[in-house]
Amino acid sequence: MSVEKKAILVVADGLGDRAVKDGKTPLQLARKPVLDELAREGSTGLMSTLGRGVIPGSDTAHLALFGYDPAVYYKGRGPFEALGVGFELKQGDVAFRCNFATVDKNLRVIDRRAGRLKDEGPQLAKFLQGIKVEGVRAIFLPSTEHRGTLILRGDGLSPAVSDTDPHSSEPLPLLESAPQNNSQAAKKTARIVNEVIRESRSRLASHPLNKQREKEGRLPANVILTRGAGVYEKVESLKDRYGIRSCCIAGSALYKGVAKYVGMEVLKVPGATGRIDTDIEAKAKVARQALEEFDFVFVHVKGADNASHDGNLEGKLLMIEKVDRLVQILCQEAIYLIVTADHSTPLSLKRHSSDPVPVLFYGNGVRRDKVKFFDEISTACGCLGHLTGIELNREIMDLMGCGHMVGS
Amino acid sequence: MSVEKKAILVVADGLGDRAVKDGKTPLQLARKPVLDELAREGSTGLMSTLGRGVIPGSDTAHLALFGYDPAVYYKGRGPFEALGVGFELKQGDVAFRCNFATVDKNLRVIDRRAGRLKDEGPQLAKFLQGIKVEGVRAIFLPSTEHRGTLILRGDGLSPAVSDTDPHSSEPLPLLESAPQNNSQAAKKTARIVNEVIRESRSRLASHPLNKQREKEGRLPANVILTRGAGVYEKVESLKDRYGIRSCCIAGSALYKGVAKYVGMEVLKVPGATGRIDTDIEAKAKVARQALEEFDFVFVHVKGADNASHDGNLEGKLLMIEKVDRLVQILCQEAIYLIVTADHSTPLSLKRHSSDPVPVLFYGNGVRRDKVKFFDEISTACGCLGHLTGIELNREIMDLMGCGHMVGS
Repeated sequence: MSVEKKAILVVADGLGDRAVKDGKTPLQLARKPVLDELAREGSTGLMSTLGRGVIPGSDTAHLALFGYDPAVYYKGRGPFEALGVGFELKQGDVAFRCNFATVDKNLRVIDRRAGRLKDEGPQLAKFLQGIKVEGVRAIFLPSTEHRGTLILRGDGLSPAVSDTDPHSSEPLPLLESAPQNNSQAAKKTARIVNEVIRESRSRLASHPLNKQREKEGRLPANVILTRGAGVYEKVESLKDRYGIRSCCIAGSALYKGVAKYVGMEVLKVPGATGRIDTDIEAKAKVARQALEEFDFVFVHVKGADNASHDGNLEGKLLMIEKVDRLVQILCQEAIYLIVTADHSTPLSLKRHSSDPVPVLFYGNGVRRDKVKFFDEISTACGCLGHLTGIELNREIMDLMGCGHMVGS
Repeated sequence: MSVEKKAILVVADGLGDRAVKDGKTPLQLARKPVLDELAREGSTGLMSTLGRGVIPGSDTAHLALFGYDPAVYYKGRGPFEALGVGFELKQGDVAFRCNFATVDKNLRVIDRRAGRLKDEGPQLAKFLQGIKVEGVRAIFLPSTEHRGTLILRGDGLSPAVSDTDPHSSEPLPLLESAPQNNSQAAKKTARIVNEVIRESRSRLASHPLNKQREKEGRLPANVILTRGAGVYEKVESLKDRYGIRSCCIAGSALYKGVAKYVGMEVLKVPGATGRIDTDIEAKAKVARQALEEFDFVFVHVKGADNASHDGNLEGKLLMIEKVDRLVQILCQEAIYLIVTADHSTPLSLKRHSSDPVPVLFYGNGVRRDKVKFFDEISTACGCLGHLTGIELNREIMDLMGCGHMVGS
């Protein structure tokens, strides 16, 4: 198998939307001359990433876009977060997404984000090193702001344990992790999680940073909450499957994590923040350079999703303009450029939805349909029709010359 | 899970068609200004209810529209008919569709509808009460005209038995019910069916109404024919699945039955006949009132299917105008309105076909595509693309805010 032509896949997170103004979607309202020009010159369509009417999560949507059926490969979000902060997971590790949070004396979670922690994570995390329960090592890794990851490493663990995070803005009690099946492994893992959290409370209570925060009337980060338990299992990489060298350019840990899971190399981009203020020129530059070394370059742009979760139309329009600029830099004759989203995040809902997202294929020889604009309405008439994420990935791999023929 | 917005689903039975005049379908020929206006303001598409090229039955199509995969949930039509006439089935009951029919002395079925019985069913049915065979109770319920339902209640029954109805307009012999597998249950059930039918012949022969009919030279209803055996199994309701309160507004027993099977409350509508003469204003009024109590309101309109089975173009056009009037009354800003059909019934065929049917989503925020008319041709360019019934249901549930996210 050899690569005929390289490709860049741009995923603008949460880009799809509904009618928000004069019956038009943000993509219909935004100024995006380059995306529209590429739509005129290439193939377009719509994608329901996980199938019609299914609301994609961010992790499952990207698995599908990379060609990995979530029904087979999705084992919970925790491992992606751990991989995304650069941790080398081993087969059987059980990982959790974590928040630093604040509990009161009655162990009610009064702030799930410990007063929106800024950059104190690493300092607090130092007090959480070296915890071991029933022979299992608990490794805590701080991430951005209040976020972190907990990895349990040892024998006989299971991801079938419930969250300790009460998932509420109301002051609900800190939950005990409970086994979700009758296995010894689930029971053991739940016991360990609960013990790790007790230990985290004890250690964080005495942290000078927390004493300082309390003195200043701020909320202490006096507990960690766990959620999204998942077990790490090594899977065949994109290289194993297609013989391609692939890389990831993203700001947020989750996307780096999913990329790493499927064997992509994660490139560092200074200025890629995973927010609306991300340095799109820096990302574009790294992506262009990456084409020298890699066959398949995945570029993730998070901002449109953030703006949507905040109900911020102006921010979403700005991000669409940034994506337009990114695409302007990336489009070259020598490669295929694919632009799409992982899912819709309608501004009116401030959550993911199942509404399909537009897809664009651009590159020399790609079929040129009659669609003139890159948006949710125009691309419905495109020659790609209506795809799932898995189908999109297969089409990209075939474009690149890495497809598998069935039969002879 | 909470409902963000309520929805009304209007299903115009057998609405889809083929080119019948000047290359146009009845939907293209009919006057339906409201449906066309909603098409201009909303999202449209096409639906192959059970998948491309599959001819949907009325029962299976509605199962799919409610989100219940017929491959899993369809156990024969009998139970839907029984539920539809208001009978409370118990787990394991085996139910059959029945006709009162006429057999001659040689037990040939000379009229499958006993001379198109009018309203004599209930009187005849009184003679069929209290039949018990091998410890199994046989409960016969009259329905409209010559129709009825037989329910067998007892241990060790099976729906794997053949029809006694010869299904022919020729005078073919009354069939013996035969077991369709080697199980004791199927053998026992077939024996019971045959005994119930023998007993029905004996009892109906002496019914004064039949003696009267024979005296007048009319055909006696001297036997019941069984078909469509099915076993009742309780399934999780729409409330269990989505937390929604749902109701059904329909004239015919079958649709009420499928609705009841999935946990909808069946509302009574005086004037809803399940025929072309149905009182559409009465249905619309009940549907609007139902929105106060229910989240998801299913409105079934049968007439277009009847007209199609009769090859009656004028009737079909009239029914389309009635649906237009219904939709005019139902469309409000505060809800989502979904209009579609369960299947096509081409006038030229006088039977169901696999031709896809148009779909329309209307409501605040719904994507506005470029389609201007609600018909089988125009909606092919709509932004909903081409859906199955199950997919349509998932999209509706997500619109209402009751969707499930896969992943995180």
